[in-house]
Amino acid sequence: MKLPPQAKRVFKGVIFDVYQWDQEMFDGTTEVFEALRRSNGADVIAVVDGKILITHDEQPARNAVVCLPGGRLNTDEDPQVGAARELAEETGYTSDDWELLSEENTYSKIDWTLYTFIARNAKLTQEPHLDAGERIKASLISFDEFVEKVRDKEFRIPQGLRHILWEALFDANKKAELKKKLGL
Amino acid sequence: MKLPPQAKRVFKGVIFDVYQWDQEMFDGTTEVFEALRRSNGADVIAVVDGKILITHDEQPARNAVVCLPGGRLNTDEDPQVGAARELAEETGYTSDDWELLSEENTYSKIDWTLYTFIARNAKLTQEPHLDAGERIKASLISFDEFVEKVRDKEFRIPQGLRHILWEALFDANKKAELKKKLGL
Repeated sequence: MKLPPQAKRVFKGVIFDVYQWDQEMFDGTTEVFEALRRSNGADVIAVVDGKILITHDEQPARNAVVCLPGGRLNTDEDPQVGAARELAEETGYTSDDWELLSEENTYSKIDWTLYTFIARNAKLTQEPHLDAGERIKASLISFDEFVEKVRDKEFRIPQGLRHILWEALFDANKKAELKKKLGL
Repeated sequence: MKLPPQAKRVFKGVIFDVYQWDQEMFDGTTEVFEALRRSNGADVIAVVDGKILITHDEQPARNAVVCLPGGRLNTDEDPQVGAARELAEETGYTSDDWELLSEENTYSKIDWTLYTFIARNAKLTQEPHLDAGERIKASLISFDEFVEKVRDKEFRIPQGLRHILWEALFDANKKAELKKKLGL
């Protein structure tokens, strides 16, 4: 959701800021409504030699998850620039053929936009730069494996991309469309 | 996610409480980690004369959404008791044949459990009791329409249930299994 313009910040956290506002109800009374803002994020579908790059991502205080390269955007950072930065930092891969696949801000009571980018023809051009809170291993899977992977609940991807992959799994035309979009 | 035991509350909001803790990183340094807790929720698949009850739910400061009956559990409220309370308040329907279909706490950095219950053989036994922040209209759809409705991104249901519906749409055996579970 987008925060309404009258929302005021009542708490500034490390990741989450809390906002509140007076909301008129249907009967004319007023209640305090609350919602959050967190830094936007970007995920990347990087295509490497006809395959898709996925990451095994371990962080302190969390089980390892399988996901796509990506992460939090810096304040006012252009989404594509941030996506390319995260891809390079986490995996060492870079690309000069980018396209936005989906953008979503659908969480209930959280103003949080997630971008999913395609990075075609990605190449390993540098060493990954992991910070002290990251242990990341990259691996490659085929396009069919990537689409099928939506059935794995533990595959941590944005809901909008999940929808696209389910549609591709369900409908051969949508699958062909996605494949073409990835340059495959 | 579940909050770690050492997490301390640093902000108490209307809906969200913010927790922080010192987290040791992989290189031995320490950073402040942050996560939220919000009241758990319950959604209900109520079966009425062989059909599924869905709601058109309008709230102040939000577009109307199509969803299942349900809502926030009260503190320490038994999930099934809360699910039955929300179903009755929002729609006037009650049931004496309940089963838990799924339970999930999968959001990144939010300790928030969502329960999805089945309420078989539900009957209209009372008037709905809506509060000042609710405008809710109930309607009935067929089982096939319910499964197909997962393709509608705007259908606001828990991710775990979404997964179950996609599997049912994709796989005839899973669909038959779900249908049987709903008593259809």
